[in-house]
Formats: sequence, C-alpha cells, structure tokens
Amino acid sequence: MSHNTFGHLFRVTTWGESHGPAIGCVIDGCPPGMALDEADLQHWLDQRRPGTSRFVTQRREPDRAEILSGTHDAGAGPVTTGAPVSIMIRNEDARSRDYDEIARQYRPGHADYSWQAKYGVRDPRGGGRSSARETALRVAAGAVARKVLGEGVRFSCGLVQLGEHVIAPDRIDWSAAARNPLFALSDAAAEPWQAYLDGVRKDGSSVGAVVALRVQGVPPGWGAPVYGKLDAELAAAMMSINAAKGVEIGAGFGAAALRGEDNADEMVPGEGGRPRFLSNHAGGILGGVSSGQDITLRVAFKPTSSILIARRSVDVDNNAIEVRTRGRHDPCVAIRAVPVVEAMAACTLADAMLRHRAQTGR
Amino acid sequence: MSHNTFGHLFRVTTWGESHGPAIGCVIDGCPPGMALDEADLQHWLDQRRPGTSRFVTQRREPDRAEILSGTHDAGAGPVTTGAPVSIMIRNEDARSRDYDEIARQYRPGHADYSWQAKYGVRDPRGGGRSSARETALRVAAGAVARKVLGEGVRFSCGLVQLGEHVIAPDRIDWSAAARNPLFALSDAAAEPWQAYLDGVRKDGSSVGAVVALRVQGVPPGWGAPVYGKLDAELAAAMMSINAAKGVEIGAGFGAAALRGEDNADEMVPGEGGRPRFLSNHAGGILGGVSSGQDITLRVAFKPTSSILIARRSVDVDNNAIEVRTRGRHDPCVAIRAVPVVEAMAACTLADAMLRHRAQTGR
Amino acid sequence: MSHNTFGHLFRVTTWGESHGPAIGCVIDGCPPGMALDEADLQHWLDQRRPGTSRFVTQRREPDRAEILSGTHDAGAGPVTTGAPVSIMIRNEDARSRDYDEIARQYRPGHADYSWQAKYGVRDPRGGGRSSARETALRVAAGAVARKVLGEGVRFSCGLVQLGEHVIAPDRIDWSAAARNPLFALSDAAAEPWQAYLDGVRKDGSSVGAVVALRVQGVPPGWGAPVYGKLDAELAAAMMSINAAKGVEIGAGFGAAALRGEDNADEMVPGEGGRPRFLSNHAGGILGGVSSGQDITLRVAFKPTSSILIARRSVDVDNNAIEVRTRGRHDPCVAIRAVPVVEAMAACTLADAMLRHRAQTGR
Amino acid sequence: MSHNTFGHLFRVTTWGESHGPAIGCVIDGCPPGMALDEADLQHWLDQRRPGTSRFVTQRREPDRAEILSGTHDAGAGPVTTGAPVSIMIRNEDARSRDYDEIARQYRPGHADYSWQAKYGVRDPRGGGRSSARETALRVAAGAVARKVLGEGVRFSCGLVQLGEHVIAPDRIDWSAAARNPLFALSDAAAEPWQAYLDGVRKDGSSVGAVVALRVQGVPPGWGAPVYGKLDAELAAAMMSINAAKGVEIGAGFGAAALRGEDNADEMVPGEGGRPRFLSNHAGGILGGVSSGQDITLRVAFKPTSSILIARRSVDVDNNAIEVRTRGRHDPCVAIRAVPVVEAMAACTLADAMLRHRAQTGR
Repeated sequence: MSHNTFGHLFRVTTWGESHGPAIGCVIDGCPPGMALDEADLQHWLDQRRPGTSRFVTQRREPDRAEILSGTHDAGAGPVTTGAPVSIMIRNEDARSRDYDEIARQYRPGHADYSWQAKYGVRDPRGGGRSSARETALRVAAGAVARKVLGEGVRFSCGLVQLGEHVIAPDRIDWSAAARNPLFALSDAAAEPWQAYLDGVRKDGSSVGAVVALRVQGVPPGWGAPVYGKLDAELAAAMMSINAAKGVEIGAGFGAAALRGEDNADEMVPGEGGRPRFLSNHAGGILGGVSSGQDITLRVAFKPTSSILIARRSVDVDNNAIEVRTRGRHDPCVAIRAVPVVEAMAACTLADAMLRHRAQTGR
Repeated sequence: MSHNTFGHLFRVTTWGESHGPAIGCVIDGCPPGMALDEADLQHWLDQRRPGTSRFVTQRREPDRAEILSGTHDAGAGPVTTGAPVSIMIRNEDARSRDYDEIARQYRPGHADYSWQAKYGVRDPRGGGRSSARETALRVAAGAVARKVLGEGVRFSCGLVQLGEHVIAPDRIDWSAAARNPLFALSDAAAEPWQAYLDGVRKDGSSVGAVVALRVQGVPPGWGAPVYGKLDAELAAAMMSINAAKGVEIGAGFGAAALRGEDNADEMVPGEGGRPRFLSNHAGGILGGVSSGQDITLRVAFKPTSSILIARRSVDVDNNAIEVRTRGRHDPCVAIRAVPVVEAMAACTLADAMLRHRAQTGR
Repeated sequence: MSHNTFGHLFRVTTWGESHGPAIGCVIDGCPPGMALDEADLQHWLDQRRPGTSRFVTQRREPDRAEILSGTHDAGAGPVTTGAPVSIMIRNEDARSRDYDEIARQYRPGHADYSWQAKYGVRDPRGGGRSSARETALRVAAGAVARKVLGEGVRFSCGLVQLGEHVIAPDRIDWSAAARNPLFALSDAAAEPWQAYLDGVRKDGSSVGAVVALRVQGVPPGWGAPVYGKLDAELAAAMMSINAAKGVEIGAGFGAAALRGEDNADEMVPGEGGRPRFLSNHAGGILGGVSSGQDITLRVAFKPTSSILIARRSVDVDNNAIEVRTRGRHDPCVAIRAVPVVEAMAACTLADAMLRHRAQTGR
Repeated sequence: MSHNTFGHLFRVTTWGESHGPAIGCVIDGCPPGMALDEADLQHWLDQRRPGTSRFVTQRREPDRAEILSGTHDAGAGPVTTGAPVSIMIRNEDARSRDYDEIARQYRPGHADYSWQAKYGVRDPRGGGRSSARETALRVAAGAVARKVLGEGVRFSCGLVQLGEHVIAPDRIDWSAAARNPLFALSDAAAEPWQAYLDGVRKDGSSVGAVVALRVQGVPPGWGAPVYGKLDAELAAAMMSINAAKGVEIGAGFGAAALRGEDNADEMVPGEGGRPRFLSNHAGGILGGVSSGQDITLRVAFKPTSSILIARRSVDVDNNAIEVRTRGRHDPCVAIRAVPVVEAMAACTLADAMLRHRAQTGR
C-alpha cells in the first residue's frame, strides 16, 4: 500500500535521501532462525558499489550496512528473531556544495518537475529521494531474501544489450558477467563494449541497455491468480527500479511475432512424475504461477539522464534555461542496475514463497 | 495483498470461474455521489464482448452486468453511496460437455500444470478461474474507474503489431481503432491484417500482437516514489492480463538503444506556468510520477495457446499425450485484450488519483 | 486497507444493502482442497437467523447462502480450489414501503447522520449498508474459517450480562448457551432473563448485554508483535460488529484493579515439555501471541437503537423532530451477535494461523 | 498487513529492541509541506520519558529522537517532502549485564513463553522487541500525526482508575492531568493516589489502571463502514499497546446495562445546520464514522508484570523455577501509557483523515 514499501509478507520499506545523514530499510516478515550478519549484506553491496570501475559513478562510499535490529546472537552467531530487521547505511560522501542552482532547475529525464508538481517541495541535494542511491537498500534487502530462499534458488544476471549492441540469444553466456566490469553476458562482447562505453563517456553522453535475468531452482507453484500473478509482481518490482522503461518475461515482445504452435512450450514425461518442457517461451511462469522451469526476464533501462551535453529546459519560474550535469555520473546506469535486478527478483520470490506457504502449507 | 484484488484505494476484487453460475467483482473505495447505472458498464462490455466478429471466440454471452449494491436512486437516477459496488455477470453459455479428458491434460501454454502443482486441485471447465472470461469484470470495473477519473482523462488503444506485421510509430492513427474489428491503429493495415488473420484462423493457428495505449489528460503529480511508481503499478496491471508477456512505458525497450541526449525530453516554457515538453520518450511518467504529458505504453501478448494444431504434452499421470484444442477460440487473444488494457489503465489511474488526493489534498 | 474487507491472508470482503437485491461476500486466500458446500454455511446461518424466537426481529428471511465460485466437485464432493469463494444471500423479505420519511430523519444511535455527513448520500432503506443484515455474511465467512482451523479449535459463546443482570464468573456454564433462546451462559439465568426481556420488549424498549467467548485448542504461537497482536486483531474484529462498544481480553477491565502478584498467571511444569498455567488472567494471549491457554474475551453491546419510545432528533434540514421506530426490531441486539462474535473470532484466528504458517513454516 | 506496521495511509513501521543499538520508526504517507523538526518530537517524548518521577522506571534515557529523512530545509526551516520520515532513538542506557539467567526463564505475564513458542528464538535482553521502550516511537509518530491533524484536533488524557481507586465520571477534570505526575484526572485524587502507589512500589508490587481519552475537534465523517470502522481502528490501536487488556468507546461496557431510551443520544437543531447532541453515550462515533462530538474512550491496563515478589514459573527446559524481577520497574505501567494512548489516537485519526479525503475529496 505504502509508496515506499515493497512486498506483502516479506516486506521492505526504504527511507532516506541521497545527501541526508543516512539511508535505510526495514524488512518485516523475515522467518526466524536464519543466520544473518552484516557480512551477508556486504557481499552483495560490494558488487553494486559505485567507484569500482571507470564505468560507474566515481562517488566513493564504503556503503557499509549496519544491522540495527531483528537479529540475536545466543552464542552461535546472530540469527533472525522474527522481529523487523533494520538496516542503515550512512551517507559519508555527500559532498557539500551549492544546491541553489539545481534547486531551481527541472532537469530533463529527472523527477524534478513531476515531484515538484506533486509535492510542492523537493529535496534537490543529489536527487534527494529519487537518487539511485536508494537501490543500495534493495541490494541489502535482496541479500536477506536470498537467505529466505535458500541456496537452491540461483540467480544469473547481466547485460545483453548496450546501446545498439546486442548479444544474440544463442550467444548468451550467463557465466560471463563475473568476468567483466560491465556484467556483459558474453566474453566476446566485453572488450568492444568497454571501448564503446569509453567513447560514450568521453563524449559526456550516456547510453541505455537491457539487463537479462535467469532464476534457477524455483519450484512449481509460486505466484497466484489473478492480480497476484508472479509475472505481474516481478514486472512491478523491475519497473520500480530507477530508469527502467520496459519488462518482458520469457519470449516477451518477441512472442507477439510468433504463431501459437511455435510459442507453445511442449512437454514430455520427465523425472519425478513431472513434465519436462522442450522450450521456455513462457519464461517459467504459466497463468501467473511458476512452472518449475527457469524464470527468465529482461529489463530495459534508459540512458542516464545526467549528461555533460547541454539540453534545453525550464526553471521553477518557467524561464528557459540550459541544463548540463556537472560532476560524477554513470555513462550507463544499467550496469549498476544488474545487482538491483537480481535483488528485486530475490525479494519478489521470497515474498511469493511465503505467500505460497501460507495458503497451501507447502 | 490478496491474490484476487487489484488496487489500493480504488480496489477491485474479482471472483468466478468460466463455467460456474456467474462471475463478479466487488469495487470498494468508490467516491460517493457519482451517477452510475448498468448501462454505463454495458457500453464498455459490449466493446469486449465475444462473438462480435469472426476474429474473436464464437462463445455467445450477452455479458449482461448487474449492479447488486453500492448505488442508490433518491429520485434523480442511481448514484454511488460510498459502499462497495458489487457487479455480477451470469454465465449463460457455459456449454455443458465432458471435461473428463481435459481434466487429465496439461495443455501447453495454459495454467493447467502450474495451478495443479500449486493447489493440488483445479476446475478444468473452460479453464476455470484462469479463463479470459474474468477480464469482462476488469472492463466493468474500468467503466466505474472512468467515472472516478471524469471525462478529462481520455483513452486511446489498439493494435500496433499483429504477428510480424508492425505499424511504424509515425503511421499510428489512434482514431483508426474504432473503424476496424481488429482495433488496428492504421486504416491502411486494417484490410491486409484481416486477410492475414483469416489465414491464421483457417490454419487452426494463432498469432501474437502488441497493444498500444495512450492516455490524455492526466495531470502532473499522480503516482509516487519509490515502489508505488505509477509505471510500476501500470506494469503490474498490464502483466496481470491473460497472455501478456511484456510491458514498456514510453520509448520502452527502444530507449535501451538511445543516447542520453536523444532520449532526454527537452522542455521549453509553456502555458500556465508549466513546461512544454518537446518529445515524450518518458511516456508521461518521470520518477514514477505523471508529468502531465500523454501516458503511453505498449503491451505484448503471446499467441492464443488454444489451437487446433496438435502439440505434445503429458497428462496428470505423466503419460505422453497430444493436445489439440477443439471448439471455439480466438486466433489473436490481443484483440479482445484492447478494452482490457484500457480498463486496467483506468483502474490504475483512478487508484493513483485517490492516493494522490489523500496525501496532498489536491 | 479496504473499508469493507477484513483479514490479511484469509480475507473477507462483504457487500450489499439491507433492501437491495442481495448481499454477499468474497473470501480470498482459502487453502485449497478443503471440503466445502452450502450446507456447511447453512448450519451456522440457521443459528443466527432472525425470526427464530420472540427475542429477535420478526423479519423472515430464509438466509439461503449460495456458493458461486471457488469450489469444484471432481466426484467426491465440492472442495475449495484456492480461488476466491463467492457467497451470495438474496434479500427475499425486504418489505417495500415508503422510505421518504426515514430518508429525511437522523435516528438517534444510528449511522444516519454520520454517514450522511461523510458521503452526502445514503441508502435509507432498512439502514442500507449499516444494517445488521451484513452480519449474516460474517457468519458464512466464519463457517469457512472453521474449516481452515479444523475441529481442534472449538468455540463457546453466549451472554454473561443482560441489562443489569450479570452472571457471576464462577457461575458461567459454557454449555448452557445451547439450551436457551438467549444464549445465556447459565441455565438458572435463562428463565428469569426471558421474562425480563419480554418486559423490555413490551415496553417498546431495548437493553444492552455482554457476550463472552472462549476458544479452546489454539496452539501457542499465533499472533505477532507489535501492531499485529492477536488481541489487537480480535479487538478490531469485535468492535467492527454493529452495536459493539467495548472489548476486553482475559481479565480485561478487571485487571485494572489487580495487583501484579494477583494478575500474574503462574506456570508449573506441564506435559509435553510445555508449561501448565495456574490461572488465565491473560486470556490466552501474551505479548500479542497465543500461549496455548484458552482465549477468552468479552464484548459489550449497546441496546438496540430502534425502539418504539419516542426520542428527540433533527431531520436533514435541521428541524426538530421526534423519532419512533415502527416495525420489527430486536429488544436485545446482542443475542443475534453471539454467532457473529464466534464467526469473527474464527476469521481472525484463521488469518492468524495462515500468517503464522507463512513466517515460520509451522 | 505487516506485523510491525500501523495504519493504512499514514503508516508507521517501528523496529528495534530494548537493548540493541537503537530503536526507530519510518512514517510513510505524510502530507508534504508540513513544518517538522526534532523539537516537535521531543516535546511529546519528554512527557513520556522514564526517570521523570519515582512512579516510572528509573532507566535514564535522554530519548533524543533524530529525524534521518523526509524533511528538507529550503531556508524557512525543515518541512516534510512527502518522502518517508525516518526517526531513530539511540539506546544509551542499555545496562550491560548477564542475561543468561533471564534467557532461560519464562516470566509470568511476559511474552517470553509465547514468543519462544512462535519463533523458536528470542532476544531476552530487556524484553527485546516486546519491551515498552518501543512505545517511545509511537509517541514520536504521534507528534507527526498531530501535525497532520492540525491544532483543531485536541487531546486530553489521563488516569481515571488506579487499582481499586476510581474517579467518578462526574468528577473527571481533564485539565488535572497536567498538574500531577500520575496524570490523574482529578486534583483531589492526585495526592492520595501518590501515597497509595508509593505503598505499592515499596511492596515490590504493581497495580493496574484505566486511562481515559477525549478528543475534541474531529469533524463528522471520519471513519468508514464496515470493517474500517473508526472505533474498530481505535480499538486495535489501543489494544496494541503493551499491557492493554480492554478498550471501550463512549459508554462502553456501561452501555450493556442501559435501556435503549437512556442510551440514545438525542439531537436538537444546532448551529451551522448541524444537530446538537444532548448526550454522548456513543463516544463520538456512529456506525463507525465520527459524528462531530468528542471522541471518548477508555483503555484498561494490567499491572506491570515485572515485580519483586516471587512467582512460580518454568524455564525453557520445563523445570519449576521462581521468578522475581530485579532492577528498575514501573509500579503502574499505565502512567507511561498515557502519552502513548494519545499518540495512538493521533495516528489513527490522521490515517482516518487521509482516507476520508481520498474517498470524498473533503
């Protein structure tokens, strides 16, 4: 219900502005008795951390997550108690500077105008609440969600398109993401893409991208009819990420061009009394419920709106101005979104798992 | 929260199976004092009604919606009272036949296997709860949502792609939908597309499509950060429609190929102290909040899974079988989805309007 | 969230006005595979049915509940499918008469003025949405909740106070309710109370009462900190019943007069590794979570507001009037509330059970 | 939905354990543009602060609330931005000591056993999540809620019963609470009650109490049928406070003894076209909706469970033990609950105000 809360039973509420004293989240609904400490969060936060390569913003934040509640160490290491887990990350590198100018501008592609129109007030420092800094908390919450899901549910994620450069579906190598700073899902693409992105960066420009996700190990049965469909929940989760403009499940928009007999995922008798599917156009979800196949989806991200190239805009008094973003920025915001896509999927699936267990007892 | 409820303040709960005695919905949270009678619903239901052309299923249902509660006529015609509006549509053409065979089959592309895996039981008659028949209730609820929104918010919707046939963005004519049975957004495409779809139908096959939606008249300020983003809510709404496989807002997946300076929607001073945008890659939503521009989105639908062409599958005992759907079916389910896409957008926006009013008093 | 919905995972949404065509409810979140037919509902509805004695309103309704969705009979009788269960009761005895006068009056103790102030419109026929007729749906939903809980959870309920007549705590006989038409929890009180209530009725007056409830068989662990306390959920459930004015758990208001050492429920080693409690001032709930003891609570009901004795009031134009209720009415609305109290407790507990299972897997 | 969240549109989520590094809350849904700084919170926190008299626990905490997000100072002092307001209070006086013994005990009247049964793990330090320390956050949230409500809504609150000592309804003086450390609603009672409570404290015992609340200035129309009744929401709010065992609205349990003609609140023509009520047995709520009269309610609190007098209990291995609470404790927990009752009412009413505005636009 709440604007800043995600999930139904595994619920994540985030708070904080880019240049306030701290950002944080509260995770309610955690199963009790799960081992959880700050190192569990840090592992995933470090993946996302800005400043790790020349392709992501040079803001230097240690992004050190503190767990303030919800765990107790009775001697064998901290475990969740069933109480809300509060996580806080201090903002240590919120460079103080003059925000008077930016406070008067509506930057194209940013939330400046629409939020001002909504609230009549906004925190202009570093984008305030609309900053991508908030996504660090999604990654932290995702780390907790992974604990809920257990090791059987495995995530692979990376870029399959950078600007106009596309990795053909049959060339996707899910293991490649770990081997290049762009999380590109192809070793062959990694080098030329870095060169290309260097050029974009030097131009003071930015470029969009498409992130692909695969989740293995989800059992059949998670999700629900009709409005609680697993694909609907995943779509909302992904579209809530900054700069996301599109989501597709399985064959996605490609399915629009297919005939029924080609799109159908045929089944043959499989092991354990379960069907074996011969293809996966459905992306692992049928009728809103997981089928036991891999869940696959793709998310389109627009290019970073903050660029060094001047764009026309207006100020709060409706005067014509030119906007040019100074300072650090990401040439492709989708790179940092990769761990966020994974984390949002983990949160969505943890929630689906608990909801399934509630209704069916399984 | 509930699996079968949509919306937060304008809340729609639907119930009913394809071949049960009736289907229905309960709409809670309606503002009081709105004129509302059954003719208001019927107008939109008739648009969606099966049996109106050779391109949609030949099941003949009058789809007559009854309003059972929530309105009162004090003399000047029925108006909403603020109490829940209950709408019921009787199932009059649920042909009785033998479902024993279908009850044992897992049809490819259908919810049969995943729902059986989830619940251990399912109603096989006409797809039960997973039938697209449920979408009639979305259309009825959408009719109520339009009343909440008022006439200033206007919807245009139709097909921009049918199988591999695409209407170029600069050839889209939003008014064309009303002039052909496919809701195609181009007069030029209407004829050849009908011929093409006739061929698909005669082959016993089906084909996917892409539906485009434009909403005019939404004021700036609806929607919310961070998880309550208007685009996230719209994405969930669209992805909850049967056979939907992808959603994109504004430039969508196309934005992934753009550079920042090309994607930026520049602003110049406009009338009434508001900026005028020079383009609309954002699709009318910035930072999750409406900007006052047209809201534009596109939804990809897979081809109808029920086809006359045999596909391999398994039965409930994991035996290999062949599945071939007999009886009526739609060669392109997206055609009937057009009024549903509109309706879901209307419900989402009505909800956003009420939530905005709650927080800001505007 | 919704005004007309109760529960989180076992969710009941009711709709309908006293004199509309029907009333109904939709229950979402039911576990699948539970045997459920209309006779299961009727058993409990018949308990509550008006017209069964001279102490409850003489309106004659068969209150026949139809199940319109959510169950499927694969041969061994209908079972729940996990889809929403829609229940409808037609209004067959909504006597048509002239509501013009009542539409202009604000009856003391009724929702007339406050609802008019809220909505600017109201359905005056038989109280519309505010009629106690809505409680039939709570009883129907409670019948479904009992199925979720299973036979181990057992309810006892009845009157412990009628007007100024009180049954002393040590004289309460839970089995007595079944033996008198007032559900009085004492055989000794039954006769004199009937004589007393006859007098009240003949006076054209009404009287308040206190209903006591005991639930046996709830395992330790249901409920939750801090705002989801089981006692908080039960209090809301009870206070949502028409005419309820107070709720107390265990020793309740009596606990205010106690000292800590007297209020403490001491424990001694019990069977199965569990403590045995030596008293139950807590009413079976500690820290918002069930302790395994009997859950006990009491609900105070005000006297029926519809009486034959004239009271001063105003009309919609703020003119002074006298109001005297004509027609059928209950001399003590709490009698009909007894099955409703039971039903609301069953719904609350079924919800708590599912929520507990979601978080803990038990 | 969430166990640790209160409210629908004005939503408060609290986190933290008594002896962890901090406790905090996140308030989502705040209207934008409200002046809000830490002094606003501190004013109310100081009222509740432990250590202010010999009648409340001697734990010395400055209870200094920090606002970490959701406000922005554009020059004229901080105002809310519509983003979530995060409030944190550090635990500075969490005396370190040996919790090994208490970790093995089930203290009578505490959540120890029931939470252990639920979660299989618990934080025993100072009661962990079940500590009344959490109520400081309710007071902080209440301070924000008061800002939402504006100065027209005024709260009066205090004790009307301490142990067996009762202030007669016609002797209640709402202004007296400010003049004595017990918040007693009678100057005459203040002195003897302090002497009485000194005796209780010296005995190592504790005693229960009843808190009365009056809210003036609530306009007619807040609240909703049927499950969203304002009295149901208030009842849940009050019953969620530690040690609360009963809630009554208006005449409450006293209404059970009344006849209809005595309980009816008669109306005569009043000013501004509104009725004037001649009595207020209803407690300002009719049919779940505020009537414009004062809202009045009473909450019963049990005696503090932590007492110096030994009580029988069992340990985690089901061995018989004696429990005697050492260290600081409140002889009457209801005294500290007074500001909490006010705060919970403020939060509930702020939520009702926003919900009313959403549905009706007023």
